[in-house]
Order: sequence, then structure tokens, then C-alpha cells
Amino acid sequence: MLGPDSETMAKKVAIVGAGVSGLASIKCCLDEGLEPTCFERSDDIGGVWRFTEDVEEGRASLYRSVVSNTCKEMSAFADFPYPEDFPVFLPHAKLLEYLRMYTKHFDLQKHIQFKSTVISVRKCPDFSATGQWDVVTETDGKQKSAIFDAVMVCIGYLADPSVPLKSFPGLDKFKGQYFHSRYYKSPEVFKDKTVLVIGMGNSGTDIAVEATHTAKKVMLSTERGAWVISRVFDNGYPWDMVFLTRFMNIVRNILPGRFTGWLIENRVSQWFNHANYGLIPKDRTVTREPILNDELPSCIITGKVSVRPEVKEFRENAVVFVNAPGAEEVDVVVFATGYKASFPFIDESIVKVENQQASLYKYIFPPRLEKPTLAFIGFLRPFGAVMPVVETQARWVTRIFNGLCKLPPVTEMMEEVNEKKKNKLNWFGLSFDEVLKTDCLVYMDQLASYIGIKPSVPALLLQDPELALKIFFGPCSAYQFRLSGPGKWDGARNAIMTQWERTVKPTRIRVVEDSGSFLTYLLKVLAIFAIFVGIFFSFN
Amino acid sequence: MLGPDSETMAKKVAIVGAGVSGLASIKCCLDEGLEPTCFERSDDIGGVWRFTEDVEEGRASLYRSVVSNTCKEMSAFADFPYPEDFPVFLPHAKLLEYLRMYTKHFDLQKHIQFKSTVISVRKCPDFSATGQWDVVTETDGKQKSAIFDAVMVCIGYLADPSVPLKSFPGLDKFKGQYFHSRYYKSPEVFKDKTVLVIGMGNSGTDIAVEATHTAKKVMLSTERGAWVISRVFDNGYPWDMVFLTRFMNIVRNILPGRFTGWLIENRVSQWFNHANYGLIPKDRTVTREPILNDELPSCIITGKVSVRPEVKEFRENAVVFVNAPGAEEVDVVVFATGYKASFPFIDESIVKVENQQASLYKYIFPPRLEKPTLAFIGFLRPFGAVMPVVETQARWVTRIFNGLCKLPPVTEMMEEVNEKKKNKLNWFGLSFDEVLKTDCLVYMDQLASYIGIKPSVPALLLQDPELALKIFFGPCSAYQFRLSGPGKWDGARNAIMTQWERTVKPTRIRVVEDSGSFLTYLLKVLAIFAIFVGIFFSFN
Repeated sequence: MLGPDSETMAKKVAIVGAGVSGLASIKCCLDEGLEPTCFERSDDIGGVWRFTEDVEEGRASLYRSVVSNTCKEMSAFADFPYPEDFPVFLPHAKLLEYLRMYTKHFDLQKHIQFKSTVISVRKCPDFSATGQWDVVTETDGKQKSAIFDAVMVCIGYLADPSVPLKSFPGLDKFKGQYFHSRYYKSPEVFKDKTVLVIGMGNSGTDIAVEATHTAKKVMLSTERGAWVISRVFDNGYPWDMVFLTRFMNIVRNILPGRFTGWLIENRVSQWFNHANYGLIPKDRTVTREPILNDELPSCIITGKVSVRPEVKEFRENAVVFVNAPGAEEVDVVVFATGYKASFPFIDESIVKVENQQASLYKYIFPPRLEKPTLAFIGFLRPFGAVMPVVETQARWVTRIFNGLCKLPPVTEMMEEVNEKKKNKLNWFGLSFDEVLKTDCLVYMDQLASYIGIKPSVPALLLQDPELALKIFFGPCSAYQFRLSGPGKWDGARNAIMTQWERTVKPTRIRVVEDSGSFLTYLLKVLAIFAIFVGIFFSFN
Repeated sequence: MLGPDSETMAKKVAIVGAGVSGLASIKCCLDEGLEPTCFERSDDIGGVWRFTEDVEEGRASLYRSVVSNTCKEMSAFADFPYPEDFPVFLPHAKLLEYLRMYTKHFDLQKHIQFKSTVISVRKCPDFSATGQWDVVTETDGKQKSAIFDAVMVCIGYLADPSVPLKSFPGLDKFKGQYFHSRYYKSPEVFKDKTVLVIGMGNSGTDIAVEATHTAKKVMLSTERGAWVISRVFDNGYPWDMVFLTRFMNIVRNILPGRFTGWLIENRVSQWFNHANYGLIPKDRTVTREPILNDELPSCIITGKVSVRPEVKEFRENAVVFVNAPGAEEVDVVVFATGYKASFPFIDESIVKVENQQASLYKYIFPPRLEKPTLAFIGFLRPFGAVMPVVETQARWVTRIFNGLCKLPPVTEMMEEVNEKKKNKLNWFGLSFDEVLKTDCLVYMDQLASYIGIKPSVPALLLQDPELALKIFFGPCSAYQFRLSGPGKWDGARNAIMTQWERTVKPTRIRVVEDSGSFLTYLLKVLAIFAIFVGIFFSFN
């Protein structure tokens, strides 16, 4: 009988965090024959998506009304569609319910150690040979050390608020209330107050809109401005199912960047003219990621939210804006100024966050390590849903851990990382000017091709043309990465063929019989003409 | 010295109600040399637009969050534009502020007797000769009678709620709470409740949307469905400034009705597919007036509002819908089932409301009276703003009172009234299938031509082509009825020329310099092409 052998024994993987990335990582470890142990500092799964009334140290915190920015078909893990009666865009409770279903279905919970905080992740002395890590965790005040063959860091980047106080002169004299958006839960705090929200990301905009429910007056201050798009996109279909297709992506890549920018600008302006609403981005050559909000223009046009330029300074009970006359009274200030990324439990020699960039190969691997046994999952901000991206990352990473995939040489990785660094935009992962040209689809396809799960549209056109057309022209949902190759899921084809049905199902409850007159066909032909007449009208 | 003479003395006009119609009526009486006395049962002006926390008997009641459905340029009296810094769509407080400014500017207040309820309006014995009315009012419990040469009834039709209890079997057994939308003020009443709103008019839809702020679950029940449009219309311009133009009106009138219907259907579907959202009108040949709501589709797609068919019956703690399996639990029911029109102080022999129709000539005059000295102002529901319509009505009516305009013979009036009656739709005034073809513009133009204030576009084309084009292609704001003729206002031309500036002013606070690269011109040319490419994309 042979004794334990590191070649035949399952490799042990430590996973830090049991949010979306952590859960996907556990599942992928199991799929690849690895032995995952997930350390979660709170007492439950869900990460950012588990709403609590209280803000917990070290865990991302959401407001009560938050709804997913991406629709359920685009936010699904590739082998686990949402139930068809779930809403198209998911309030946090529904998204958490989905994560619980996923956890239960794949029996992930037993691999999670709750109330366990990772204190340090250090290279073992023989790291260059084994690639092993010494992981110290703390549970109920007691520290424990264990050796792991690999580590997946799945802690996100929304736990450590960034309030650049120095950028706001006079804030020390300001006698009103102020807090970071992380501490916002529901609009009662704004009752009859004059509210100023600083920062026009998704949170800032949501908070400004929601503040109108109770506040006396709401101002939203933005230096850079932003394009705003609605979840309710063309003909009411989810924006991401219309926008994020392989066909659109190719078109965006073929057209010159500036022209693509114009197309986007024109499309968003169909909803509303961003200059007239005070939101137009300042530097339109560096297009920012659009923000998603369904109600902002309506709040602006009814005077409920008033857009302001950047803050010049604070006074005792007021604020002065750049290029604006006089001070405006304000009672409460919300800093929706984003988050700082940090990995306190990992030595800076291994990974260091500078200018919001962590110099990771493919946003995952520190490129200079002797062994590729440390991976960061979900440390990027895709223009689209997080789930499919982190799942694809985790599938690739676990196959690197078990040796079925390989990383390129260090020099090649370093070259690519340095190339990315030149892009000076202050945020993680894929930036929008790149997104416009490629978005995260190209990224996912890249990882998918390393794993051998990238669908080939030309090949499919011969075998299964209906499916091929749906993959090419339809929404790029994650199911298509489970059609073949490692991790193939038998339900994938059907999930793709029925994705629109599941999208329409929860809202199409009241059904009216089509009157079906003999004119219907004629009218349908005329409809195309009608659209053009409509366009003609709309110019006047 | 001559004694008082009824030929030379100013005619005395009683005005019932000091809301929008009443204030316009006072003003027009003064303009036409009549002597108005306005009786207002409450202690303040504003009618429906004066929000109070308590519901007052006999006065329309609004909810706290209500915002005008028509924008400020379209909702202005013809010689009194809104201040340019007012929001584009007006929260009730701003609209009331405007009415106060109007009252002050034209010194109307001194003609109003507050806390005076009109008890009866009866013909004087010599009515057939004098046309005079005996008006009995009650102030502080004391009744008073006075003779008036004419009466203008300006009480609206939103004070008397209609709850067709018999249409809801089992309501007597229902143990939850229920009330008419008139009693709704703010969403706190729905905290953690399951709410059912019955009726999908503007109020019902607003209430359902707002209930999502606090409720556990919200259902919106509609039998007929409705087209929904947003205040934020093409490129973010107010829907009514885009939609209600003379040019569009002519196009709508030239095209066959069914085709116009298709155009509208197609236009509203660009925002969202009404079938997929469960809202599609049941009988599309009789198109209902669209309802205005900016947030409903977003609430539906995020699962916050769930659309249901009509109610079949109530159970103890639940409701059963037609064609739906099983009962659904419900805690609170809001009947947004509209209002009954009634004139309790006028004898039914003079005017009688049957099937929500009052058989009034031009929605104003009881056609069979011996003298045209009784007028109903604002007793219609225009598809557009109320102010310009009631103002034009009051201008015509006051000129009939002082003899400068004449009514046609009774037979002609009766013929027109009976013709209108054939239209069996259950509501006041202009119905939508007619609106589609003509909307209230044709109605206003008709009254304007009687008064001699209708702008002539062909004539203007020669004199002032810029103005003519704005009148023809631009929003049909009321200022154009003050360009010439009786009641001419010198500011009218300028008000028309600057209406878009005033529209953009309150939201264009944060202004960004245009980068103005040398490519801009080229790009602007390409933009047209881009739109077509965009359309092509949107088909996929």
C-alpha cells in the first residue's frame, strides 16, 4: 500500500471569502478534483449580496433597495440558470436566494468555515519547489495555521471605503452630517434634509434618486459626468442582453474607436440629451463606463435631483461648487467616492495595489511568483455581469492549479501587465475605452480558449445553425461556455435556446389575446415604414 | 345723471371654485370688463394643486409626490410663462406657487370669497329675458342669496370618488384594508404590506410605483391595460413639447386612423414591449389615452410591481384574478377607479351627468338654455395640459357673456352634442381615439377662431417666417393664442421664441465645454449614418 503522495492526493486550496467569487471558486475546485477550504469572516455566504441593516467591518455593504445591474440570464453561473419566475433584474434578496440555491445544489456549504478571518497568507519556506502557502486564520479569537497547495483570494474590492478628505477643503468646518455611501441603508436618514451626494457612480446615483423619496432637496455633484443607460433598453429588453452580443462586439471592434464612441453617445442621447441634463462626460475622448439608472432623468426633469459640478469647498452649513456663484445650504453629504483595494493579509512583495492597479496577469496572477499557486478572483470590474467572469476565471485557475493548463513565461506575462498599466484610468480591471472596443467578452473568450471551452461559431454553423445564430447574434450569456470541453453541461444548449422565454416569463403575467384581424399582416409590413416615419417625426 | 342701467353696468359673474379653471375665469372676466365673484369652499386657492395632508370634503385630493403630467411651457397660461428656473415638470408645490404668482400678478385674490360653499344655482324667474341666476352660498353656516348675470362652474371632476363596489364580489368578506386612491397621501401606509392597486390610470400607476418604496409586494390590476409613455421623451425633451405640435397633428389627421394607431403603438413600444410587460391594451381598436409614468417599466422588470388582470373576487385575506390560478394574499387594496362627475347645486333639468357625459356644447354650454349664461369650465380631460384649454374656454365664454361672441342656434348645438354622445367611451371630454386624430389642439383652435385669436401660419410665413415655423413645427404652447386679436399680449412672440431655453435652463446647471475638435463636424455628418446603423443593430 502506498502512503500519501502529493502527486496523487487532491491538492488543498484555500479560498478567502464566500461571496460570488468564493462560491464559484469552491465549485470549480470540486469540478477539477481539488480540495477547497473556504474561509469566510462573517457567519453566512453571499458577500456583497447579503444585505444587513448593520455595516460589518471588512464586508461590503449595500443599501436596502439595491437591484442587480445585469439581468438574470447574463448574471447566471454557466450551468445554473435562475428559476424562470425570478425577476429579470434581481433585488438583493433574490440574488442571495439564487446563491443559496447554487450552494445547496452543488453542496458547497460543507467546504466553508464561517467566522474565520484570514490573518496572513505567507509563502512556505520551500515555496519555490512546492508553491505552498502558510495560511493563518482566526476563529473565535483563536489563530490557526495550515498549509495549502494554492490560494484563491475572493474578497472583492468594496469593503474599504475611499474618502479623499483632502480633496474637499473646509470639510473640517462643515457642521452637517457626512458619511461614505457604504454606510447608506435607506432614505429615512434624509427626511426633510438638503442632501448632497458626491460622486456619480452607480451607488451615488442610486442614493441621490432614492433620497428624493424623503429629502427636501437633493443635489448630485459630479466632476466627470457620465453616460447613463437604463436597464429597460430597446423595446424594454434588458440592456445587457441587447448590448453584449458577439455580433455587436465585432461591429464595435471593426469601427474606428472614435466612431464607436459616437454610436454609443448617439444611442444614449436617444434617451436624453446628457448636456441638457447636466450629465455629459467632461472628457469624451476617455469614455467612462456608463452608469445604470432607470430613474435619474425623470428625477432631474421634475427638479427632484439637481446635478452640480464638483465641490470647490465646504462652509459651516453649506457647499460651494466650482464655477457656481455663492454657497448652497446643505445638511447631509454622502461621499459616493468609491473604494480602495487592499490585501492586508498578503505581503506587498507579492502583490501591491498602486493607483488602483494590482499588476496581475489577466487580473488574476501575480506574474513574478515562482509557482502560479496564488490567484485573485473577481478583482476586476467588468462592463457586464460578474458571475460569468469570475466563474471563467475560477475554471481556468483551478485547471492551472491541477496542471491541466499552463501560464506563459514570466517575461511574456510582465510585458502584458506593463502594457495594461499604461492605461492610466483610475480603476480596476477592464476600463471603458477598452470595454467599448472589446468589453469583457474578449477577456472571457481568451480564458475560455485557454481552457478549451470557447464556442466556435463557424463550426457550430454547420452542426447546429440555430444555436450558432443565437450565440452570434443573441445575448452572450455564460451557458455557451458549457457547451463542450471540460465542465460541459448537458443543459447548456437548452438554456441558450430558452433564455428569452425565461426573460419574458416573470413580467408577461397579464396576457391579452391578439385581435388578429386580417389587417395584421399588412400592418406588420407597414410597421417598418412606420418606424422611419417615426424617425422623421422625431427630428421635429 | 342717469341711474344704474343693466346695459352699461358691468355684468356680474359668479365663479364656482378657485382652482386652475376658476382663476383663469376670474382673469378672463376682468379682461372682458365683467365683474367676477369667485366662491371657494376652502380657505385658499389652487384647487386640486393645493396639497394637504388631510382629505377635504368636496375638494380634490392629491398624493404628496404628485408631479404635473405636462411640462411647464405647455402648462402655462398664455400670457404668463413660468419662471425659467422652475423645474420642467412641476411638483404640486411649484405648480401652486405658479398659481399664486398668477393670482398676485393679475390681482385676482380680491375677487375671491373663501370658505363660501355654493348651495344652489337657480334660474331667476325672469331668466328667459335676463338670463340671470340666483346663487345661494353658505359662509360660516350662514346662507346668502345673490343675483348674477352669469355663472361659470369651475369645480373639476376629481372630488367625488367612484368605487364600483358591486363589480368586486366578496369585498364585504375581505378583512384587509381598502380605500379609494383619493385617500392616498404617501407610501408609509404600505410598510411591509402586500398591496393591490386596482385601476391603471395615472394615479393608480403612480401609487403602485410609489408603494414599492415601502411595501413587501405590489400588484397592479388592470382589465384594459394602457400604453405608457414617459415624461422624458425623444432625446429627453418633454413628451408634450415633442408630441403636441401642429405639424404632428396634421400628420395624424392625414393618415388613416388605424395607421396612426400603429405609429403610436410602435413609438411606445420603442420604450418597452407592452405585451411582454403585461400592459398591452385589451381592445386596441379603441385606443385609450396613454398614461404617463417614468418608472413603471423599471419597477416591472425588477419585480417590484407585478401586473395582474382584472379582479374576479375577493376572499378574506386574498384576491382572485380572472384567468389566474388560485388566490393571492393581499393586505391593502387601493381603488384607483376614478371619479364620478356631479353638480349637486344645479338642477338636473339644466344639466345632468349620464354615463360620465354631461351633454354640453363644446364641453361648456348646456345647449337648451334660453340664454347662454351658464358655462362649465374645465369639465373635460384633454390629452395635454389643462391650463391653456380652460383659459381658452374662459376667454370664449366671457366674450359670449359680454355679447362679443355668439353661440349657434340650439338645433345646431344639439346636433353636435348628440353626435359626440355616440362615442360611448366612459369618460369626459375628448376621448382618445378622437385625440389620436385631432387631440385638444383642434378644439382649442376652434374656440380660438370664434374669439379671433387663432394664429394663421400661412399669413405669418410672410410676415414673420421664423415665428411661423416655430408655431407649425414647434410645441403648440398657449402663447400663440396671445399673438393677436382680443387679449393680445406683447410678450407672446418672445415667449414662443424662448420656450426651449426656459425648458433646458433648470437642468443644464453643470455645463461642460465642448471639446470642439476638428473632427466634430465630420462626426456630426456621420451621426445620421450612425443612427441608421444603430437601428440596424437594434433589430438584432
